[in-house]
Amino acid sequence: MDMAECVLSPSVATQTYHDLADRSSANPILKPGNTGANFPGAEVTCVINPGVFIWQSEPHLIVRIAERMPQTPGEISTLVADRRASGGARIVAFDHADPHLVYEDSRAFTYKGKTYLTTLSHLRIMRLINGEYAVPADTIATLTGEGDHETYGIEDCRVVRIRDTYILTYTAVSEYGVGIGLRTTQDWQTFVHHGIVMPCHNKDMAVFDELIDGKFACLHRPIGIDLGGPYIWYAESPDLKHWGNHRCIAMTRPERWDSERIGAGCAPIRTEMGWLAIYHGADHQSRYCLGALLLDLDQPWCVRARSDHPIMEPLAPYEQEGFFGNVVFTNGHYVQGDTVHLYYGASDTTVCKATMSVSAILDSLTG
Amino acid sequence: MDMAECVLSPSVATQTYHDLADRSSANPILKPGNTGANFPGAEVTCVINPGVFIWQSEPHLIVRIAERMPQTPGEISTLVADRRASGGARIVAFDHADPHLVYEDSRAFTYKGKTYLTTLSHLRIMRLINGEYAVPADTIATLTGEGDHETYGIEDCRVVRIRDTYILTYTAVSEYGVGIGLRTTQDWQTFVHHGIVMPCHNKDMAVFDELIDGKFACLHRPIGIDLGGPYIWYAESPDLKHWGNHRCIAMTRPERWDSERIGAGCAPIRTEMGWLAIYHGADHQSRYCLGALLLDLDQPWCVRARSDHPIMEPLAPYEQEGFFGNVVFTNGHYVQGDTVHLYYGASDTTVCKATMSVSAILDSLTG
Repeated sequence: MDMAECVLSPSVATQTYHDLADRSSANPILKPGNTGANFPGAEVTCVINPGVFIWQSEPHLIVRIAERMPQTPGEISTLVADRRASGGARIVAFDHADPHLVYEDSRAFTYKGKTYLTTLSHLRIMRLINGEYAVPADTIATLTGEGDHETYGIEDCRVVRIRDTYILTYTAVSEYGVGIGLRTTQDWQTFVHHGIVMPCHNKDMAVFDELIDGKFACLHRPIGIDLGGPYIWYAESPDLKHWGNHRCIAMTRPERWDSERIGAGCAPIRTEMGWLAIYHGADHQSRYCLGALLLDLDQPWCVRARSDHPIMEPLAPYEQEGFFGNVVFTNGHYVQGDTVHLYYGASDTTVCKATMSVSAILDSLTG
Repeated sequence: MDMAECVLSPSVATQTYHDLADRSSANPILKPGNTGANFPGAEVTCVINPGVFIWQSEPHLIVRIAERMPQTPGEISTLVADRRASGGARIVAFDHADPHLVYEDSRAFTYKGKTYLTTLSHLRIMRLINGEYAVPADTIATLTGEGDHETYGIEDCRVVRIRDTYILTYTAVSEYGVGIGLRTTQDWQTFVHHGIVMPCHNKDMAVFDELIDGKFACLHRPIGIDLGGPYIWYAESPDLKHWGNHRCIAMTRPERWDSERIGAGCAPIRTEMGWLAIYHGADHQSRYCLGALLLDLDQPWCVRARSDHPIMEPLAPYEQEGFFGNVVFTNGHYVQGDTVHLYYGASDTTVCKATMSVSAILDSLTG
């Protein structure tokens, strides 16, 4: 079945929902001051975008921590991970007055045409108490970039459990581009690195927590250049390591809240009506909201319904101001009954928590 | 082994080679006037970029034919393939005076922000006589875009034979972006379509004609955005349909002939010194030349040597002027002894032929 056949015609929503999120009064539940840096002498600038998983019956976060060296006046510096020694990094510094230096935004700069991130991210595992308080986990605490394709860090990890294996998909950043790395673990002590499973440019890979037609399945977000754009694609795999049969299933929508880029959150939620996939969308002002897609249960590459309006918008002060303001971004949740316990990055600075009703999200969709 | 370990330091070339190609006096061997269009009433604008294969002991080409409707004054029109009916297409036309129309270059335009190609490409199979004269093949003559991801056409097909199977990898173009489609055949009459094996943005997928460590292997060319660029990557597959372990193996080089983009030709050539991979490189003026990489025999993701200077440049008049001038681009050859019989697109308009000496190419490399 092709896309044109399986997408129902959009109709005008009879009801308008703009924010279905019940935010925790403890927000932000994690912020830069709460965690130390990984590299000696570095400072933490962002604690964001956690993956979520249940381990030993308790919810855990795998948080992205972005750090850099304290900035010296007249200089800009960043950290680059050592491709040979796991956990190692070196400082790269440039003179502010150097005409070869071009400052892009709070997240990146270029020197002689080569782009650097302002921060180096790693992943840290935290245990949640009452769903709202994060403490260091009783396991390996830190995952860092490894090898050639993760020297600029690893970011925004999704976690899904299939049988006894936890599957981690995350953004792998290096001078070669932004792709997706995949690691697996069964005990959160030892990890197998399966390399780059989606080459650049790609982000936001969310693996389904069930096999579809006997294969692993995922949503991911490559970017078309000249033709296409930052759209959501579906792909399948016999073994998690090799992916194929890529199909575009959702595009950005001009002049709407998701006009500029979209990308999947974490594993879609199985409901009686279909797979509910929470995704982020940004508009021309880089304002990041959340919405949802309803995917066919048997053919998840068919979109049955979609949010006309965001289901969550950056409304709270901590969602509007920070390292990069006006952002709610999620790549982790767990579900209990009708409740999604959603963890999200706010303004690219902190980790926050909200709950949402699955049935309320479903009711809000237009199909 | 990581990239830094396996790439030898570049040294200054002691000899300068700028063009090793012995061009056929019959060039161009195929041009738009030689072939009819596929769509009734259309005109052929380009006959280019052939894949090459040996079938029934004779060399054949699988040529890209780009066509469009004759242009009416005051209008721009193009063809879009029917996603449901193989071989069908529809005409899309816009008024030149419409302010929503933006003409990009000879290859593309946008209307209300949506990009279209000016031509629709399909693939046609030709038989070669004496290596220089192409006649219709005694087999299915035409492959067209099929399904959602090939509505803007299929282009630049590489062919490799492994055992009894011919593997076709080609650029699949649609509103969703530019990716790579893969089909296989054993008899050139019936084809199996394996879908999009590399999502957008990706081109120039050249499958090795031997398994590497028990797996299929390829070179391909994704594009990094913000970070990275249009670099050559290596990937592997257990089954041709699903690909993983993506590794960047060669980058563009600032201020050189391959400064802006690079991409593999067809299957690398096994030599005693390593896999010889002919590739194209373009500079900031979009002047396309050919060069070569020498890849380690056992670890083809390690680059052992690379062309300091092009091994072929657009020097002949038919390589300098045409639909898009100053282009030599190859995705097909066959090898006899020390001779590469190279077929190439000239100025995005015609098919040409040249021969080169494998040993001369090897001698020209800097490692």
